[in-house]
Amino acid sequence: MKLLEERILKDGRVIGKDVLKIDSFLNQQIDLNLLEEIGKAFHEAFSDIPLTKILTIEASGISVAVMTAREFNNCPVLFAKKDFSRIMVDDVYVAPIHSFTKGLDYHAIVSKRFLSKDDHILIIDDFLGNGDAVAGLIKICRQAGATVEGVGIVIEKSFMRGIDRIENKGVRVVSLARIASLKDGKIHFMEED
Amino acid sequence: MKLLEERILKDGRVIGKDVLKIDSFLNQQIDLNLLEEIGKAFHEAFSDIPLTKILTIEASGISVAVMTAREFNNCPVLFAKKDFSRIMVDDVYVAPIHSFTKGLDYHAIVSKRFLSKDDHILIIDDFLGNGDAVAGLIKICRQAGATVEGVGIVIEKSFMRGIDRIENKGVRVVSLARIASLKDGKIHFMEED
Repeated sequence: MKLLEERILKDGRVIGKDVLKIDSFLNQQIDLNLLEEIGKAFHEAFSDIPLTKILTIEASGISVAVMTAREFNNCPVLFAKKDFSRIMVDDVYVAPIHSFTKGLDYHAIVSKRFLSKDDHILIIDDFLGNGDAVAGLIKICRQAGATVEGVGIVIEKSFMRGIDRIENKGVRVVSLARIASLKDGKIHFMEED
Repeated sequence: MKLLEERILKDGRVIGKDVLKIDSFLNQQIDLNLLEEIGKAFHEAFSDIPLTKILTIEASGISVAVMTAREFNNCPVLFAKKDFSRIMVDDVYVAPIHSFTKGLDYHAIVSKRFLSKDDHILIIDDFLGNGDAVAGLIKICRQAGATVEGVGIVIEKSFMRGIDRIENKGVRVVSLARIASLKDGKIHFMEED
């Protein structure tokens, strides 16, 4: 997605050799005009699937999931929570996740009331790196017997293992920007196939 | 907001004497049709203010802020992060917050790059209870020299101290549903003024 790549080049900041910060338009400040286009791009990519819900994980995935759901006739959005809270009283689906960027472990949690074997799910997330978060969300869907129809990623770090790992689960992944390398502080995108 | 009150009565679940769970339409599963109406209601309430950004805090405030920003010509949304992460490298505004529902302390953090004295801010959050989160966001705005034009709350627990606390700071609060009591597991709304 050209508009997104241009924005990443303009405002993305490379930290070390593998972290890309996009907090000026997605991960802290959110540019809704850009997100509208992102939502349209995901709708175009997945317009053929029998979607019942969009699943993401707090916090940065939520705005992307919401703006994508608007394109799918306001279909429900479901977001996995991290950790346990005092008011998490229900039976829940749980998947352990290691956060690459934060360097810590947590659990992704979805109440059993919101996912069933009748659901056809599009998983949405901002980044795909090592793929831990998305793998956890797929695991949760499969615990519920729900069908994972696809995964929509805003920015794929193609130099990390996540993309192979998720595709090896038999799930179709559509990434709107694919980064080949962040070496020497420079952002290189993958060539178009 | 009648539609919201009806939905709270239908799907809200009272836990103990002061917690209301609305995870089937806002805090885990998100009903975009309802959120569209919530966004419109906030726009109507605050259409007179010279807004530059909407500020919220992760995670449950994000969807409300995004759908409200759509009504304000896609104005930027900014969300405060909780805690520190490995990639938080910037100078930040910080406010300590005690979470009533989770029973723990954390910091709300906003990068200094995204808030300035030229900003006119609408603060949006899902709940107002003791008011710690909103008070923290106001503190952050004032650190930046930004003007807090108002606070939009989806559900105000009017029996807790938050509403007085925020109004005593000289900030206008608009709450779309105002709960007088959750005693005996029953939801009672405030009478209209």
